[in-house]
Amino acid sequence: MISFEEKALSIELDKFKDIRKQTEKICAPLQIEDYVLQPNADASPPKWHLAHTAWFFETFILNRFLSGYKPFHSMYNFIFNSYYESIGERVMRVDRGNLSRPTVSDVMNYREYVDEHITNLIEKIKEKDVAEFEKLFVIGLNHEQQHQELLVTDIKFILGNNPLMPPYLDNHNVENIGNNIELEYIRVKGGEHLIGYKGDAFAWDNEKPVHTVYVDNFEIANRLITNKEYLEFINNGGYQKFNFWLGEGWDLARSQKWEAPMYWHKMDGQWMNYTLTGLKPLSPDEPVTHISFYEADAYASWADKRLLTEAEWEIAAKHFNPTSDNANFIEKENYHPIPIQNKNEICHQLFGDTWEWTYSGYFPYPGYTREKGALGEYNGKFMLNQMVLRGGSCATPANHIRNTYRNFFHADKRWQFSGIRLAK
Amino acid sequence: MISFEEKALSIELDKFKDIRKQTEKICAPLQIEDYVLQPNADASPPKWHLAHTAWFFETFILNRFLSGYKPFHSMYNFIFNSYYESIGERVMRVDRGNLSRPTVSDVMNYREYVDEHITNLIEKIKEKDVAEFEKLFVIGLNHEQQHQELLVTDIKFILGNNPLMPPYLDNHNVENIGNNIELEYIRVKGGEHLIGYKGDAFAWDNEKPVHTVYVDNFEIANRLITNKEYLEFINNGGYQKFNFWLGEGWDLARSQKWEAPMYWHKMDGQWMNYTLTGLKPLSPDEPVTHISFYEADAYASWADKRLLTEAEWEIAAKHFNPTSDNANFIEKENYHPIPIQNKNEICHQLFGDTWEWTYSGYFPYPGYTREKGALGEYNGKFMLNQMVLRGGSCATPANHIRNTYRNFFHADKRWQFSGIRLAK
Amino acid sequence: MISFEEKALSIELDKFKDIRKQTEKICAPLQIEDYVLQPNADASPPKWHLAHTAWFFETFILNRFLSGYKPFHSMYNFIFNSYYESIGERVMRVDRGNLSRPTVSDVMNYREYVDEHITNLIEKIKEKDVAEFEKLFVIGLNHEQQHQELLVTDIKFILGNNPLMPPYLDNHNVENIGNNIELEYIRVKGGEHLIGYKGDAFAWDNEKPVHTVYVDNFEIANRLITNKEYLEFINNGGYQKFNFWLGEGWDLARSQKWEAPMYWHKMDGQWMNYTLTGLKPLSPDEPVTHISFYEADAYASWADKRLLTEAEWEIAAKHFNPTSDNANFIEKENYHPIPIQNKNEICHQLFGDTWEWTYSGYFPYPGYTREKGALGEYNGKFMLNQMVLRGGSCATPANHIRNTYRNFFHADKRWQFSGIRLAK
Amino acid sequence: MISFEEKALSIELDKFKDIRKQTEKICAPLQIEDYVLQPNADASPPKWHLAHTAWFFETFILNRFLSGYKPFHSMYNFIFNSYYESIGERVMRVDRGNLSRPTVSDVMNYREYVDEHITNLIEKIKEKDVAEFEKLFVIGLNHEQQHQELLVTDIKFILGNNPLMPPYLDNHNVENIGNNIELEYIRVKGGEHLIGYKGDAFAWDNEKPVHTVYVDNFEIANRLITNKEYLEFINNGGYQKFNFWLGEGWDLARSQKWEAPMYWHKMDGQWMNYTLTGLKPLSPDEPVTHISFYEADAYASWADKRLLTEAEWEIAAKHFNPTSDNANFIEKENYHPIPIQNKNEICHQLFGDTWEWTYSGYFPYPGYTREKGALGEYNGKFMLNQMVLRGGSCATPANHIRNTYRNFFHADKRWQFSGIRLAK
Repeated sequence: MISFEEKALSIELDKFKDIRKQTEKICAPLQIEDYVLQPNADASPPKWHLAHTAWFFETFILNRFLSGYKPFHSMYNFIFNSYYESIGERVMRVDRGNLSRPTVSDVMNYREYVDEHITNLIEKIKEKDVAEFEKLFVIGLNHEQQHQELLVTDIKFILGNNPLMPPYLDNHNVENIGNNIELEYIRVKGGEHLIGYKGDAFAWDNEKPVHTVYVDNFEIANRLITNKEYLEFINNGGYQKFNFWLGEGWDLARSQKWEAPMYWHKMDGQWMNYTLTGLKPLSPDEPVTHISFYEADAYASWADKRLLTEAEWEIAAKHFNPTSDNANFIEKENYHPIPIQNKNEICHQLFGDTWEWTYSGYFPYPGYTREKGALGEYNGKFMLNQMVLRGGSCATPANHIRNTYRNFFHADKRWQFSGIRLAK
Repeated sequence: MISFEEKALSIELDKFKDIRKQTEKICAPLQIEDYVLQPNADASPPKWHLAHTAWFFETFILNRFLSGYKPFHSMYNFIFNSYYESIGERVMRVDRGNLSRPTVSDVMNYREYVDEHITNLIEKIKEKDVAEFEKLFVIGLNHEQQHQELLVTDIKFILGNNPLMPPYLDNHNVENIGNNIELEYIRVKGGEHLIGYKGDAFAWDNEKPVHTVYVDNFEIANRLITNKEYLEFINNGGYQKFNFWLGEGWDLARSQKWEAPMYWHKMDGQWMNYTLTGLKPLSPDEPVTHISFYEADAYASWADKRLLTEAEWEIAAKHFNPTSDNANFIEKENYHPIPIQNKNEICHQLFGDTWEWTYSGYFPYPGYTREKGALGEYNGKFMLNQMVLRGGSCATPANHIRNTYRNFFHADKRWQFSGIRLAK
Repeated sequence: MISFEEKALSIELDKFKDIRKQTEKICAPLQIEDYVLQPNADASPPKWHLAHTAWFFETFILNRFLSGYKPFHSMYNFIFNSYYESIGERVMRVDRGNLSRPTVSDVMNYREYVDEHITNLIEKIKEKDVAEFEKLFVIGLNHEQQHQELLVTDIKFILGNNPLMPPYLDNHNVENIGNNIELEYIRVKGGEHLIGYKGDAFAWDNEKPVHTVYVDNFEIANRLITNKEYLEFINNGGYQKFNFWLGEGWDLARSQKWEAPMYWHKMDGQWMNYTLTGLKPLSPDEPVTHISFYEADAYASWADKRLLTEAEWEIAAKHFNPTSDNANFIEKENYHPIPIQNKNEICHQLFGDTWEWTYSGYFPYPGYTREKGALGEYNGKFMLNQMVLRGGSCATPANHIRNTYRNFFHADKRWQFSGIRLAK
Repeated sequence: MISFEEKALSIELDKFKDIRKQTEKICAPLQIEDYVLQPNADASPPKWHLAHTAWFFETFILNRFLSGYKPFHSMYNFIFNSYYESIGERVMRVDRGNLSRPTVSDVMNYREYVDEHITNLIEKIKEKDVAEFEKLFVIGLNHEQQHQELLVTDIKFILGNNPLMPPYLDNHNVENIGNNIELEYIRVKGGEHLIGYKGDAFAWDNEKPVHTVYVDNFEIANRLITNKEYLEFINNGGYQKFNFWLGEGWDLARSQKWEAPMYWHKMDGQWMNYTLTGLKPLSPDEPVTHISFYEADAYASWADKRLLTEAEWEIAAKHFNPTSDNANFIEKENYHPIPIQNKNEICHQLFGDTWEWTYSGYFPYPGYTREKGALGEYNGKFMLNQMVLRGGSCATPANHIRNTYRNFFHADKRWQFSGIRLAK
């Protein structure tokens, strides 16, 4: 007879195995050469993601709870530490793509080694360690899921910026047909609302504590902005008229010669879009994606609307279930935002498809305190000069997202599946 | 008998003359050579400030309301436009210090020419233009006051970074003795509060519209952090311990080798501080100043406190009068924050002395809309990646500040008179 | 009966096959991941070298002489053109390492495809084309040999800058024991000398035309400077005393924190040297290598000697046979400079081991003219701000080098096998 | 009765006074604001030149020979040391334009102070010091003359890059009319020639020792290339055809968008040229100037000619007297190259008008050795990656130049009066 705790742990071990497998599944279509590159400083090589997520379990769990554990390789802590000052020196972020070794095969062995030891550890963990172990273990799982999304977007960057524009996968599973729903605005009642995570399940520290905010009444768009709508902005000179833009967005767009979202190419007068199934004619009813905050905000100005704040978004999203069957998360294997599938919902695409830029800075909630120790570096030290995005994307695992989930990127980033929802 | 409107205009003309004179008074102690330099990209040469503030009246008022007005020089629009895309091409910001001409004397003639035409205009303005004129005129006056503060801080940068460290003025008027008040926290009741400017007088568009926010109960420090307290942070290794810092602040502090506030110099084991009266031994009871947001936040973390949000600051400040006789504004001619002069107040230094960094991003208030036309570029296009500061400083004109006033700078900026007030 | 020309062509075909095979042999010890990286802007990924040398034959020979030739892939001209403006647009040099595709396997197929078509072409080339074909074909072979040397040094850079410092090959074949010969100077008579290539065999255009130079009597060192001698320079503060250095070399050495040749590591007080057989204790009698011109010149100043000019070097070298059995070229498979093997020579190591920095700029010889067409870009357009190196290295094919051969690199480059020979 | 030596010294004192006065005369037309700027990293502020030339006499002469000499200001060594590592720390070169103090008036006092002490020193110098003093004194004078030329070109840069394009002086003295002489080539016999300075008068160490070079017969153009000829190159697409250019010159010209020499402006379809007398229509018969080596070399390639080597130039120039009355040196006060004045010479403009780029690197002559001590840094440490220019310009003092004089600049520099003479 196994105890409740043992059962819980064995369930978690299954989840661990599923998540670890999913990470490797994402990489399965790659050539070995694809694993090595870091073509921009924000992205990381796929093999780095594979190893870093193993390193996370090794560093924060095996080194601590598994007595006698011998790290797989003495140099891997130096190579695969991402940014933890408390864990010591590390390879410069920009040099991650300068490492041909360890090889993909070495990294796969590393993962296997860590997996085996995690399995061993779960079998024989001491009771007194269970609580702390579980806390870190769940963080490790969520951390790996975050890297799954980054893997998809980094792979897209690697392949999509190659002059050969190779597809990542063929078309099977991909739903690129759907409905064209009129853009409408739904009234949401303002007042005092509780924001942030309150329950007992896992949530990141940046979603806490729950706290009251006051918002005025507002109206939220019933769906994301589509390629077709964004194209109107382009054709209307949106990239040439400074008055729609934030100052630094305007300067950046000029210096980078932005004229359209990332991955859009005008070829012989026709707009093409690089997707993970290859270069395709631009699909008008898909949500626009791979745009910076600056572009999202400029679009909203042009449309005489605005973006939501994160509080407004969360208040509106309380009425929706993130894991609804319709949401286009990674499990759907579209790897791309898709047109609306089910005409009968009230508010579409709040979850999945694209992350939605909000006009809210990524700051601590009132009462937020950083964790002690290395994991205190996980979220808190980034709380400046980044903008909050909400709702997950087509590269997010369905069981990873929440109403209260706060993603964050610098306003200039375009390689994530980021999109636009308007408000007024 | 003069009409009410005529009287109002003549009062404004007096105010105009006072403010224009004050700008020139700030420059009076300079050598001609001091007017030319732009030693960092954020600062501007004093003669540029002098001319740009004249350009503002010429461009937005004389060109529009004074029929037959001939601009002083055809090239000055190119040279002295700061950042108005709608007004046309302009000298690159970083090149402002590469211009020896127009000379200081040319610039003074320019100012005089504009002053005379403004006087003429006020005498003969058409009734139908009065309302619009007044609106722009008041903006011009407030704009010039903002440049007065920048003049002081840019002059300090020019002189304080010169190896000779020349003083700007001698010691007369400067009050550097005061009381040492215990650091205490004052409870402020939370709940729904109205934030933003509501009255009929002038306020910037970024202070509007008035709107409701909800804050929890909080406690605000009764005074600014002093040099002595900040020195403890330094001596305690504050600049060497990453866990107090935001990630990008830590990286910046390392790369810039920050070990103390700007203008602090350790000489023969003693801390010296360059002030506008020259290099002085560090005065322990003065408020610490010339620190970045990163340092303010790291100090707060080290002290196990936090910075205020701008809403909290404004709620607390409602109880105080910004133009109290005690406030150390520019009229006091200290040009430096000073120790507390009047022990009997409850909350000290909320206004004057140093701007107070808040942990609030400079974003639009709910319902904010940019003005149409060039002045829409004044505030709105900067609403990203900057932090709000509140309360004015020793370089702020007393009649320029308000409870609701929002100043904003990037988190790394140190050349303004910026300081720390804690909360919990 | 085959004609003389047919025979000549079939000999060249054999040479072609040998050289092509040798290129691939150099890459044989690599992991697939090693082929992809470009860890500095001077180096290129191994797979780029493999493909670019095929592209050279395709572009300059197959496209021109083989009627109906269909290029292997329409995009490869864009991807594998190095710097030929006349051949059209190309991938930016710094982006060569951002391409995971074509894969190594694709590149090998490309090479095979080109090889087959070259074989076909040689069988059926038209008589009228033979002369021009041969000229270009020999250039193609020499071009490929140049890339063989770059392959070795780029591979060393990729592996040697990896924190794991993996060896390229194990120790077999490597001769790291030899004689320690006293450093002596050999008198060479000056006067008028003919310099440059005069014969009928292949030589680069930059070696021509032969011309007279006048040099004074000089003395040339009988061997290269060793690690042991260079270590004295280091231990004597050579990297800390500016007076030995050229101004820009001094500034560079300070900013790059150079304290020793590239690949030297001081570990626990002992100097280690990364070689292609892995990290080894510094071998005292080996020639020092991986130094910049600045370091070579600073060493010479410290030793109160000087470097040779290229004319002096060539005059001295006329007495020696570059393909002597003793010379340490790539065929010896040492992949590293080695101590002197044969004590009985007069002047050691003039050929092989390390390229020797001369104090001569890479400029056109009197009467030099660039070729017309794309191959005019091969050498002429680089004739500025680079220094001439002479004599080949342990990574040079023996049949590629000549007395008159002029190699050239910028003075700061260290990743080639470059060394020091003194003169006075 | 005064001794020979006393007389010699008093003659030198007169020369000192003349040269010092000339430096100040060059600055006389400036506004105080003009003295402060450093608008590019190669140039220096005029007041820096004025002070640095005084510092040179103070540091190398007064500090050494005048017992009890008290430097004018303890910080000036830090501020006005240009690049002498042996003299200690100094203001970064790029920061010279960030110093408003010392003021122009302070600097003039500094000069006066140094002048007085030099006068005193000459009166009472000890006999044993005379020889060494004289050597350094003559260097100081020549050093100041070099800065006179830099003053002219830096002033031109400051004024000519100002949007107002103010003239430095009005037209008096300027000869911009002259003869249009056919471009012809003069045969010069080659063979062995002595190159370098041999006499007893002053010459820089880089002109020594005299040594033999061998050159082939060559032909030298009888005059400089004119604006009209250079315009043909432009109109013929010279800036758009890569095959005329060195690789790095091509890349630079593209990135800098060079389409014409510095200071040329196409306005309403007409080419204008900023000169020190203001903006003027391009004068066709003037020598072209303000071009980089890259442009000179590209022009020569386009014309199917070449540039001279410095040896060829010196051999040809031996037949001419640099101080001929016709030469357009600074004393003519044209401050600009002018058309040929005297039709009857054989070879025109070898001296004065513009420096002539040669295709010779600035390297040590055979047998060159650096001086010991700080003055060893004067020339030797720059002997890399710069090209030699010969013959002086319209900004060179007539008594400063020699047949053997070697000027040197990086190939990309355009702000000097540099021009083109062809050879074949």
